[in-house]
Amino acid sequence: MTKADDFPTTDDKTEREEGTLFAPQFDSHGLLPVIVTSAKTGDVLMFAYMNAEALARSIETGEAHYWSRSREALWRKGETSGNAQRIVEMRTDCDQDVLWLKVEMTGAEASCHTGRKSCFYRAIPLKQGLSGSLVFVEAERQFDPEAVYGHADAAKGTLKSS
Amino acid sequence: MTKADDFPTTDDKTEREEGTLFAPQFDSHGLLPVIVTSAKTGDVLMFAYMNAEALARSIETGEAHYWSRSREALWRKGETSGNAQRIVEMRTDCDQDVLWLKVEMTGAEASCHTGRKSCFYRAIPLKQGLSGSLVFVEAERQFDPEAVYGHADAAKGTLKSS
Repeated sequence: MTKADDFPTTDDKTEREEGTLFAPQFDSHGLLPVIVTSAKTGDVLMFAYMNAEALARSIETGEAHYWSRSREALWRKGETSGNAQRIVEMRTDCDQDVLWLKVEMTGAEASCHTGRKSCFYRAIPLKQGLSGSLVFVEAERQFDPEAVYGHADAAKGTLKSS
Repeated sequence: MTKADDFPTTDDKTEREEGTLFAPQFDSHGLLPVIVTSAKTGDVLMFAYMNAEALARSIETGEAHYWSRSREALWRKGETSGNAQRIVEMRTDCDQDVLWLKVEMTGAEASCHTGRKSCFYRAIPLKQGLSGSLVFVEAERQFDPEAVYGHADAAKGTLKSS
């Protein structure tokens, strides 16, 4: 089991921001936020977290693995739904505490547990009050979550994405 | 000053995931993670956090405001550097605890405090060990951080992005 301190570390800000040493800064829970976009469309598909083990497996296999905070378990994307993610490119940000993955999807190409391509299927109206109504955008379902997860509550209760 | 409980709330998962009520779920620190992409290129520019006040100001003005965790201060993007962000679209995810902003940049069109367009200017080699060397991609500087911030340490020490 890979731990956070199995990765290189550095206290040198210049090295961290301008160097080639990959020294990921896990947060106090041992996690890194991960932004996932479609290599095909550029859209943001989902947002998740990796612990050291999920990051190590993602790097080694090229298949996206995450840490489920709700289930407290390592999770290979698509292990239940068949909607896996092949990592086309993985980037780190300036201070190496966030990751960006560009992925190709398999299966129904749906990243969201609701059956949609992206978790971001509703827009917030701007220049209005705080209680504006959300607007659905690109919200077509690619699969039926009840059929895939057996029971909709299973997905809703324990799996944010799958 | 807008607080988290000034926004609508709901305990109904179906309403939260399938409804039109905007009921953002702030984390235990009162923050929401925010993914920021370029409306022009689709690239991920940066990752930041909003508290309730930053979110309210962003919605009301259409200009991106964030909460700086390091400075513990509200922050209008570009107030120092001139690289402001006009929000073209704001989306929320399935369970309303993450935001995605598509933005148009002003000024030098640089979102990163290092002077680059994006904070994500280094790629992590895949299918190798954990200590692979980062590869610089699209890493040209749009501005000189020392000239813009007066002293490079000011940016590095207190401002992740500007």
